[in-house]
Amino acid sequence: MFKFECLYQSKRSAARIGRIHTPHGVIDTPHFVPVATQGTLKAIDSMHASHLDMQLVFCNTYHLMLHPGAEVIAAAGGIHTFMGRSQPIITDSGGFQIFSLAYGGVTQELKSKGTKQQHGSVLKITEEGVLFRSYRDGSKVLLTPERSIEAQKMIGADIIIPLDELPPYHFDQYALHRSLERTHRWEARSLAAHRSDQRGQAIYGVIHGGIDPVLRSISAQYLTTLPFDGFAIGGSLGKDHAEMERMLTMLCPQLPMHMPRHLLGMGDVRSLDIGIPLGIDTFDSAYPTRCARHGTLLTSRGVVKITKGIYRTVHTAIDPECTCMVCVRHTAAYLHHLFKAYEPTAYTLASIHNIQYMLTLFSRYRTAIAEDRL
Amino acid sequence: MFKFECLYQSKRSAARIGRIHTPHGVIDTPHFVPVATQGTLKAIDSMHASHLDMQLVFCNTYHLMLHPGAEVIAAAGGIHTFMGRSQPIITDSGGFQIFSLAYGGVTQELKSKGTKQQHGSVLKITEEGVLFRSYRDGSKVLLTPERSIEAQKMIGADIIIPLDELPPYHFDQYALHRSLERTHRWEARSLAAHRSDQRGQAIYGVIHGGIDPVLRSISAQYLTTLPFDGFAIGGSLGKDHAEMERMLTMLCPQLPMHMPRHLLGMGDVRSLDIGIPLGIDTFDSAYPTRCARHGTLLTSRGVVKITKGIYRTVHTAIDPECTCMVCVRHTAAYLHHLFKAYEPTAYTLASIHNIQYMLTLFSRYRTAIAEDRL
Repeated sequence: MFKFECLYQSKRSAARIGRIHTPHGVIDTPHFVPVATQGTLKAIDSMHASHLDMQLVFCNTYHLMLHPGAEVIAAAGGIHTFMGRSQPIITDSGGFQIFSLAYGGVTQELKSKGTKQQHGSVLKITEEGVLFRSYRDGSKVLLTPERSIEAQKMIGADIIIPLDELPPYHFDQYALHRSLERTHRWEARSLAAHRSDQRGQAIYGVIHGGIDPVLRSISAQYLTTLPFDGFAIGGSLGKDHAEMERMLTMLCPQLPMHMPRHLLGMGDVRSLDIGIPLGIDTFDSAYPTRCARHGTLLTSRGVVKITKGIYRTVHTAIDPECTCMVCVRHTAAYLHHLFKAYEPTAYTLASIHNIQYMLTLFSRYRTAIAEDRL
Repeated sequence: MFKFECLYQSKRSAARIGRIHTPHGVIDTPHFVPVATQGTLKAIDSMHASHLDMQLVFCNTYHLMLHPGAEVIAAAGGIHTFMGRSQPIITDSGGFQIFSLAYGGVTQELKSKGTKQQHGSVLKITEEGVLFRSYRDGSKVLLTPERSIEAQKMIGADIIIPLDELPPYHFDQYALHRSLERTHRWEARSLAAHRSDQRGQAIYGVIHGGIDPVLRSISAQYLTTLPFDGFAIGGSLGKDHAEMERMLTMLCPQLPMHMPRHLLGMGDVRSLDIGIPLGIDTFDSAYPTRCARHGTLLTSRGVVKITKGIYRTVHTAIDPECTCMVCVRHTAAYLHHLFKAYEPTAYTLASIHNIQYMLTLFSRYRTAIAEDRL
């Protein structure tokens, strides 16, 4: 069922227009992948979600495994039925959350100089897997490559991801290399577990190697020899966009042209402007919905901080160019009011707008590629 | 524009099927009136709201006056445009909130034996009006009958309400009588202010008199001599449903048959079972949305506390008889999960369901009246 077609290759860059076929429909690439961590987008219910043309959303196995439990989702008939979504879904392995909860995000980490942030949520990493404490009830949970795949089989997304270790940004060369080799072994075990019971799912290998270009190349070279259906790029790519650009410029040509490429956890416009011309097909990010809940709206005229007093009397749409269901119905003044009044609908409307902004932006990227402007 | 038609009078009780005509459409009565205090239902945005057949919603002048300000709503083109609602809206005078914030609700008050609860938000009540402290910024605001009407003109609802004093449940006879007489003068001034600039709005007189049947009768007799378009029953009607029933049984026959009757702030099923057979046409209540946010769902099989562990694996709709957009798409297990995961969409889905439950319930009351079963 899973297939990637390259429909058009830009004459100006490695950017391409593609189509990923999955059991739950197609994904036109490049495509933005909103995050629905716990089986719902934050503040956007399934009815609204079905009116946004999100061809792929990202759910997190870590959260779903801890609540309601992969077996509950299986009994519900799988994640699509459970969350009321008919279109494609991708899940990660659970690894990212386990490690990011332990180490914090890259930004926090850069600030904290690699100190483990908290709570010792990662108790032990062994060849077998990772032992961690559940953020929900403090119980100890062992996640192995096989268990991650088993959970992802029960959840039943269209695209799944092998268990990987997410090394912190501040990691010495030796530890990074050792982590990469273990991640490779975990990914191979994940792949084997997957292939013994495919269920129409696709699996993407995750390229690691942190900020070391040599390790990244080793990772790409090794993982592309395995029968994955596509590739994701994971872990830290550097401390800024310039470092990220250098890394992706080196790395992307090492990935097979005929397979989809996903950049994990990146969705800011600068990253898209770097990634798309290098041939990245899909990007997931919680940023548009998270910043929406803080009143930051993405518009064709730049970022709008809707809680600012000046918007109290702006009786026109947030973005006059936007055709989303919020902009056609509501004014900036109304959104400003809802935010100032702490109304939950503020978060819903802002999130819908920002998701639509991203989807429209990607549609423009596709047009730009088709017209060889990118 | 405003007109009330009695379409059918039950042969078994004073219950009737009616239709209220307003500049923004009709209201089929008896009808439930959800509360949209600050220009939005809590957790239900205008797009979802437009798919629920709420023929009337209740906005609160007190909140809208303090934020964003009646003048902002006027500049937006009125409350319908501002909140993106094409159907009828009713606003209150602001009086209820001022006094209820000062005295607390009836339940709290019964417990606290009438002690003023808080903050001295009511600073002074004079013949002119009520001086109170804004809950938003602590500034002093004087609300007079004329200012309340002026604000309600700017807000622009279809039905408005004169300024009244909401005496606490524990109030001596003399104070209650004095309060009632002042309320009558305030209502007459409100009516005069309204009639000097009608703008197609209707105004309901509010019957007061607390738990004293004689004062209630005096209030009904006096206010029904004034050219109001309908009547609301306000203030405390007693400490339980039995007291309320006695009071309404005495009071309702004193209200003109050819005008709509609204019971302020009551929407529990027991109150409906009392009020509808006595000829009450509309009921507003925040209860269905408030309890929804606490995981209490109203169903044909009684109340469901969705956060209970037993719902984790219930892969059927919350209410198999319900045809709301939540029940046709989602299971109890999914809603349980969203609540346990503290997802904002939990509150949205539960609120939509509860509102639909109330609307369906009222539709059944209308059928029961039509069939002389009520």
